[in-house]
Amino acid sequence: MSHPANESSVDVLVVGAGPAGLMCAYGLAKAGVNVRIVEKRADKIAAGQADGIQPRTIEVLQSYGLAERLLREACQLHRVAFYHPGPNGGVERVARIPDVTAPTARYPFEATLHQGAIEDIFIDAMQPLGLVVERQTVPVSMQLSKDAAELNDPSAYPVHVVLQHLDSNATQGDAETETIHAKFVVGADGAHSWVRKSLGIAMEGAQTEYIWGVLDLVPETDFPDVRSRCAIHSANGSCMIIPREGDGIRLYVQLSDTDVVDPATGRVDPTKMGPSEILEVARRSLHPYTIATPKEFEWSTIYIIGQRVASQFSANERVFIAGDACHTHSPKAGQGMNASMSDSHNLVWKLAQVLRGTADMSLLKTYELERRKFAQDLISFDREFSALFSRKPRSHENDTEGVSHEEFFGAFKTFGAFTSGIGIHYADSAIVDSTHQAAAQHITVGQRMPPQMLLRAADARPYELQDLLPADARFKILVFAGDTTQPAQRARVERLAGELHGVLALFGAGGAVEGTFDVLAISSGKKEDVGYADVPALLRSHWSKVFVDDVDMLGRQGGHAYENFGIGSEGAVVVVRPDGYVGLVFPFGAVQDAKAYFAAFLRARPVQ
Amino acid sequence: MSHPANESSVDVLVVGAGPAGLMCAYGLAKAGVNVRIVEKRADKIAAGQADGIQPRTIEVLQSYGLAERLLREACQLHRVAFYHPGPNGGVERVARIPDVTAPTARYPFEATLHQGAIEDIFIDAMQPLGLVVERQTVPVSMQLSKDAAELNDPSAYPVHVVLQHLDSNATQGDAETETIHAKFVVGADGAHSWVRKSLGIAMEGAQTEYIWGVLDLVPETDFPDVRSRCAIHSANGSCMIIPREGDGIRLYVQLSDTDVVDPATGRVDPTKMGPSEILEVARRSLHPYTIATPKEFEWSTIYIIGQRVASQFSANERVFIAGDACHTHSPKAGQGMNASMSDSHNLVWKLAQVLRGTADMSLLKTYELERRKFAQDLISFDREFSALFSRKPRSHENDTEGVSHEEFFGAFKTFGAFTSGIGIHYADSAIVDSTHQAAAQHITVGQRMPPQMLLRAADARPYELQDLLPADARFKILVFAGDTTQPAQRARVERLAGELHGVLALFGAGGAVEGTFDVLAISSGKKEDVGYADVPALLRSHWSKVFVDDVDMLGRQGGHAYENFGIGSEGAVVVVRPDGYVGLVFPFGAVQDAKAYFAAFLRARPVQ
Repeated sequence: MSHPANESSVDVLVVGAGPAGLMCAYGLAKAGVNVRIVEKRADKIAAGQADGIQPRTIEVLQSYGLAERLLREACQLHRVAFYHPGPNGGVERVARIPDVTAPTARYPFEATLHQGAIEDIFIDAMQPLGLVVERQTVPVSMQLSKDAAELNDPSAYPVHVVLQHLDSNATQGDAETETIHAKFVVGADGAHSWVRKSLGIAMEGAQTEYIWGVLDLVPETDFPDVRSRCAIHSANGSCMIIPREGDGIRLYVQLSDTDVVDPATGRVDPTKMGPSEILEVARRSLHPYTIATPKEFEWSTIYIIGQRVASQFSANERVFIAGDACHTHSPKAGQGMNASMSDSHNLVWKLAQVLRGTADMSLLKTYELERRKFAQDLISFDREFSALFSRKPRSHENDTEGVSHEEFFGAFKTFGAFTSGIGIHYADSAIVDSTHQAAAQHITVGQRMPPQMLLRAADARPYELQDLLPADARFKILVFAGDTTQPAQRARVERLAGELHGVLALFGAGGAVEGTFDVLAISSGKKEDVGYADVPALLRSHWSKVFVDDVDMLGRQGGHAYENFGIGSEGAVVVVRPDGYVGLVFPFGAVQDAKAYFAAFLRARPVQ
Repeated sequence: MSHPANESSVDVLVVGAGPAGLMCAYGLAKAGVNVRIVEKRADKIAAGQADGIQPRTIEVLQSYGLAERLLREACQLHRVAFYHPGPNGGVERVARIPDVTAPTARYPFEATLHQGAIEDIFIDAMQPLGLVVERQTVPVSMQLSKDAAELNDPSAYPVHVVLQHLDSNATQGDAETETIHAKFVVGADGAHSWVRKSLGIAMEGAQTEYIWGVLDLVPETDFPDVRSRCAIHSANGSCMIIPREGDGIRLYVQLSDTDVVDPATGRVDPTKMGPSEILEVARRSLHPYTIATPKEFEWSTIYIIGQRVASQFSANERVFIAGDACHTHSPKAGQGMNASMSDSHNLVWKLAQVLRGTADMSLLKTYELERRKFAQDLISFDREFSALFSRKPRSHENDTEGVSHEEFFGAFKTFGAFTSGIGIHYADSAIVDSTHQAAAQHITVGQRMPPQMLLRAADARPYELQDLLPADARFKILVFAGDTTQPAQRARVERLAGELHGVLALFGAGGAVEGTFDVLAISSGKKEDVGYADVPALLRSHWSKVFVDDVDMLGRQGGHAYENFGIGSEGAVVVVRPDGYVGLVFPFGAVQDAKAYFAAFLRARPVQ
């Protein structure tokens, strides 16, 4: 497209450079998509805001090659300590349990790192891709074409956005404007999303009665678990401790209306509670332990929890909203930033495939389908969890109103799969097909592919399976080939190879299977015997693509993949979506079902 | 010191920027030492040369924070395959065994990465420290003072070196010179070391009869173990395969005199064997497997193995030599670069301590003591290993001359502790005192501190003990405190804390224990009970310095440290030198012996 001055075109315009927007723009740029990202703020977040990273989010960041830095900089939470009222009026520890209870979590801990540092990880990774955040830039108008043909044409530019470049040195009237013609727009512009409002999308749900104060400080204290995550349930109010990087911690304290609500207006008046007042509330909860008033507080805030989900996550699959723009909830289970980045992670590969012309526009409908359902589940969970946390602790044996500590940390464990992000389960849809679930009984179709150590056949080097599934916008075809050293099984694998290759070649971008798919084979033979050439050449684009399910050379790790995954000696094929979620499993005999699966959303090349 | 033009002073001048020189300069700069490094070559090594990194060297690089990048870039060798003559004339595989057999190796593999890439790791790490390699710069004269007082004064500059800056654009006569006054000089300038020669130090030992050809290529082959390290012992000659990064391999083939020696001169004539001829020799050895002639060869060379050790490793402990400048041997066991970097690693902390004024000049004598003994052991090993490898394989059952494959890989396993670098053992000396070895029976005094997972008491985060022992020029004092939740043991630890702190305070740089020592405490209590405050404040400079010997929160790793180390419930103290080698272990009652140990080479502060 050629344009007059102050007009330009882009494949995807991302509005907002918080975690959701950065993940989206970075992921798209990494997939080779032409993308721009604009942000109102002149600078990154310096302190406060979201800072909890779930185990699943660490896995996702690892799939983009970003976890190494996160883990170097972040604080790790391995343990949660529970405190309840003791016999002497103050609280006492009733348990120390694992912070993460999801058994398959590859990273069995939460990480905390302030939002600005997380934003930096993306910003630095974007830079070599030639992408920078355009700051002090806001959309002021947006028009979406009503032409059905244009809306259905992935190569069309049906969204027209006028951007205003705010220059702090110029007077407001001088602000420069630019018109952008975009194929797609993603609004990741926060709870007060301009994109959402301009689409007229409503937030459904309600404000709760829960009011919380949050305080970041470096504590001087005799509280023995100050470096563990703590749930302190005292007769004098509830309090949570979240350790942060360095020596800092974050305190969450529950406040009452009388503390913070202005009786005249009925609204929260943040000036009624400064950091010292929030600390005072925490002190009552921590008694008999003490915490000194620090020389300075790092950050504090007060808020009422809203539990709301947007009624739609897109307009015609051309303008999307992601992150806080489509869901708000309590921060206590450390979900916010994770849900936001997961929205983008879900959307990125779908946009990339559609823009490459390998997938049909209909693929984009699965974004709202999958992520809105998740957001609703998140609100339901938040409702239960917040209510439980807000109830008084059980004060004596016959107190049936109060929450016992067994009940409390029982609930904590039950919610573990959810709070860790590990248990996210996308329902059957065009891209999730559990028909042949029995072919791999312990790989849940719709959930993320679990971690597993494998040995590379050619050199016996151990690899984490998840590291073989990078977020590169390609589907991973895992051929569990059985014992390839047995001639009968090898013959079965040869037959599968021919059939499967034929199907994959139909959908390969640019005519090459490798454009859309990465095929890996996993033999159940022994490392002493298996050679990479045991696997048919059609399933092996390189010697490094063949693996063995066996313990490593020193017996320290690996093995039992077939058993862990519930795959029998006859083998099975697992299709992992580009975002790491299992889309399909099928037995060797069901290659035609795999063809039907892909045909539902991928575009077959025209027959020669 | 102030100087006329073209004169300057430096604490340490390093000559040569290969792996030994770079490790030395980087290590010194990291320790805050004023250092310069000069190098004759205009550019880094582009291909060929040394490329094998042992398990112990990976541990050492990790202690400097450099292993992460190495592991990202290098090829890993987990397996070695042995081939022997089969019944049909060609070779056949007789075993696939672990490449590394040392049971405590933290990284149970060798890494290969070409020398230039390894040099880059150091060069990039030096840059933020303000240190760059001064290239095309050579020493042309060196004078060492003969004044005993000056030689014994660590603040004196007894070495005067004239450097010539070679400018490729200038005629030779124009080359600029500079006189450097150095406290210390390290000659890491290779097998033909100018520094060694100018000191008149002789190389002792002899040239062997073994002639080897080396060839780097990307192979096209049906040889099934081409991505494993292979020892191929055929009736048609011996051959080794070393996989390299990417798809490349290195072939080592044994040559005969008639192949390469010019009968007229009796010397090796490298023009007699090009890469094609070397490949031809390998082909005979690999039969019945085939290897195609590649479009291009990456690198090749031919050499006769010399097995020599320098008679001295220093002149008056003011000029040192390191790396190939003091030992040459065969490359077959992948020792060269490792021995070179280990020389520097041994020297760096000693120079740093002396230059800081915390250690006595006598500490520097232990460099030659420890590293020359190691070099001699290396030559002895090399002699045995080369002889074994050069013998013909056993051709039939009654062939008592030939080497059986059992004999060959039995030897391979026996040599494992040595070839991995894990078994390096420094004998008792001023800095190695095994008197109280019984206090920690399975920690060998004089060997490197083995890896072990521990949990941090405050937050149950797992840590690898070796990562708590960074190469920061400080001694690590590991207080195995026993079960600190038991009052009786706690009382014993309180007594130890007072006594031990008194001793450490005597030697602490700048009057602070932490200037010279890092004290860590390890409780044998359970993670459910232990708090970091259980350890006396005198042994705990920060909450992060207290650990628990227990499995992690999910029972995946850790635990059994006391058992693995042979430490009883009464506890013990382990002194780890700054280079990661155990200098001393002692029971709680022997603090005075620890005082005597440190007093032998550290300078006590004047009594107030």
